[in-house]
Amino acid sequence: MADIFERLIKNYGPIGQHRERAHGYFAFPKLEGEIGSTMKFRGKDVIVWSLNNYLGLANHPEVRKADAEGAAQYGLALPMGARMMSGNSNLHEQLETELAAFVHKDDAILVNFGYQGMVSLIDVLCSRHDVIVYDAESHACIIDGLRLHAGHRFVFKHNNIEDFEKQMDRATALIEKQKSGGILVITEGVFGMAGDQGKLKEIVALKSKYNFRLLVDDAHGFGTLGKTGAGAGEEQGVQDQIDVYFSTFAKSMASIGAFIAGDRQIIDYIRYNIRSQIFAKSLPMPLVVGNLKRLDLLRTQPALKEKLWDNALKLQKGLKERGFDIGTTDSVVTPVYMKGGVEEATAMVMDLREHHKIFCSIVVYPVIPKGHIIYRLIPTATHTDADIEATLNAFSDVKAKLDAGAYKTNAIPDMAEH
Amino acid sequence: MADIFERLIKNYGPIGQHRERAHGYFAFPKLEGEIGSTMKFRGKDVIVWSLNNYLGLANHPEVRKADAEGAAQYGLALPMGARMMSGNSNLHEQLETELAAFVHKDDAILVNFGYQGMVSLIDVLCSRHDVIVYDAESHACIIDGLRLHAGHRFVFKHNNIEDFEKQMDRATALIEKQKSGGILVITEGVFGMAGDQGKLKEIVALKSKYNFRLLVDDAHGFGTLGKTGAGAGEEQGVQDQIDVYFSTFAKSMASIGAFIAGDRQIIDYIRYNIRSQIFAKSLPMPLVVGNLKRLDLLRTQPALKEKLWDNALKLQKGLKERGFDIGTTDSVVTPVYMKGGVEEATAMVMDLREHHKIFCSIVVYPVIPKGHIIYRLIPTATHTDADIEATLNAFSDVKAKLDAGAYKTNAIPDMAEH
Repeated sequence: MADIFERLIKNYGPIGQHRERAHGYFAFPKLEGEIGSTMKFRGKDVIVWSLNNYLGLANHPEVRKADAEGAAQYGLALPMGARMMSGNSNLHEQLETELAAFVHKDDAILVNFGYQGMVSLIDVLCSRHDVIVYDAESHACIIDGLRLHAGHRFVFKHNNIEDFEKQMDRATALIEKQKSGGILVITEGVFGMAGDQGKLKEIVALKSKYNFRLLVDDAHGFGTLGKTGAGAGEEQGVQDQIDVYFSTFAKSMASIGAFIAGDRQIIDYIRYNIRSQIFAKSLPMPLVVGNLKRLDLLRTQPALKEKLWDNALKLQKGLKERGFDIGTTDSVVTPVYMKGGVEEATAMVMDLREHHKIFCSIVVYPVIPKGHIIYRLIPTATHTDADIEATLNAFSDVKAKLDAGAYKTNAIPDMAEH
Repeated sequence: MADIFERLIKNYGPIGQHRERAHGYFAFPKLEGEIGSTMKFRGKDVIVWSLNNYLGLANHPEVRKADAEGAAQYGLALPMGARMMSGNSNLHEQLETELAAFVHKDDAILVNFGYQGMVSLIDVLCSRHDVIVYDAESHACIIDGLRLHAGHRFVFKHNNIEDFEKQMDRATALIEKQKSGGILVITEGVFGMAGDQGKLKEIVALKSKYNFRLLVDDAHGFGTLGKTGAGAGEEQGVQDQIDVYFSTFAKSMASIGAFIAGDRQIIDYIRYNIRSQIFAKSLPMPLVVGNLKRLDLLRTQPALKEKLWDNALKLQKGLKERGFDIGTTDSVVTPVYMKGGVEEATAMVMDLREHHKIFCSIVVYPVIPKGHIIYRLIPTATHTDADIEATLNAFSDVKAKLDAGAYKTNAIPDMAEH
């Protein structure tokens, strides 16, 4: 009989296999100092493009004040227990009421962490007779929620409405054959890797053709898209057609926790039945207080979103003018697509960090196909014109070196912390 | 075709069905004021037995100071992003080192929330060829982790070693037939409902007979059991035979987050592959700072654990002397078993709250079989002799009334907040 540990440690996985050289540099790096467009990495100032601090709220003076006061007043323990048993408060309910109003929904419930919130949300909505139809590039938390689903699921090609219809035909036929169950469609407001918005408008238009409920994970749209910041649904004019709206607080809100919004009846159902909330601790009070302040700034400081978009469009325009391929983003998320091997990519990232003092995240094989490199730049309201200019120049430099073969190497250098 | 929302709201579930009368009272009650043995419920002081604040750390002056200072220094946003990408820090690593030492393990990793930490831990350890053998009364987070498992699983009757062996025989035979895979055994250090410790000693003794790895969720044992507070494994003298040790910070530590400890190789494997951590935000810095302080108090203030046990034993002895059935608890968790219908139970809880000013949690049908009532009392280091005496008297009073049929009613009264 095999020992499960022996099998596991034979292969530490796509990133883990490089850990002896990569730990603390390519993986688990430490960004130190206050969150902002410039932070310290291994003792040196770097311009950071890796944090989803879209509106710059992480270090906003009013947020810092609210966070400090909330923790001083309540401590980080309060309330204790699950929301349903002993973890409820007026402030939790107030935040829910304000979130529902902000995203133009009837009611909302807080969840204690986004990942487990989404996993349990899918679980609580679907019985084994229901069929889930979902976008192929859905986030890991959606995938893990799908994995709990005992019934059928059909995946449609990313943002491909023709394939969506094909899968909806299959789902509809299956349910007619089963003579029970309904359809839940899941997609995202903004896909975090490529930055393209989910085709919400096209999907909801098909509500006249198909019978389904729509769940949208708007982690990257909430606070960054739409006239009032209510997200991708507002941006596309279809917020009222999203049946279950979900967003984490981990991006624009620069916090943790998440919420689910929709009509009162379904939210009440979720409130009384969602496992990760019934069986785990409520969101701590200082996070509730801090999120109330963040939401207040989303509502009252539209200049933050304008500045974010100014920066995003400057960065995206600059990259395009310099000949970079940034794909199909229509959000502030800015991918840069290049070609090269894993070893070349790591040499290029090191050059960016060590020489140009630019810290950004990179995605390579086996996460994406061999020979491809994706940089993923996250502009925020805190970036300056100088940050953007320095970054554009750095990218031009490293791309020229990449094209000239300057990063050709057969090994990943040992950059680990020892 | 059915609409999934229509199906759901036809039945709001075991607790949700009572929500119109129960909300804010029997479900989602608000305990207000500082966490302690006495808090406010609907404006009145009540003695609280519902919070897992075992050591009284929630409101310990040093904890409150650390929580306030951590939030003032770092804000609640730092660090942003997943641990592997941009959410690492020296303090996260320090807490891991200290936790590993505290539970006598080689290495540890923090997870951002206990529930999703356990779900993903089971997922990362097992392939579809592995077989999981687990206790029937495992917590919901373990059950949801099992639900992600694509391979076989066998449940053994709660704490029943005879049945454990039977299931291990089945698992072993299956793996021999498969010619691949290994066995993961999952149990708990202390079962949170009945308070009985998992039979760790008996299970690890069977390592000479069966080949398996042992994962223990010690949520209720960590900090409360064992000479140094290292938990149920230390208490039973088998900590070194637990291959993967897990505890949340939501109980003794009066915080959120959790950790996984074990040998360096397996922890490193988990670190680089556990989905809920790779794809979700790192534990915020003030929680890391606050947990460092809490752990320091676990190490340096054994008097807190002594006081907890003094109170627990006084409460348990008092209940037994008064003829109450408290089952088989060998932890501080104190269940009280009674018989009666759901409506009687709610009338009794109201009497306890309104007349005796005692707030405790109750479990009834359909969570447990019809006709049974379980009170679940959680003693803490902050309870006083007067709290215990008042509670014992109150229980004697309501039990006498219950036996005399004084709570017989056909309806749950409308106690909802409107």
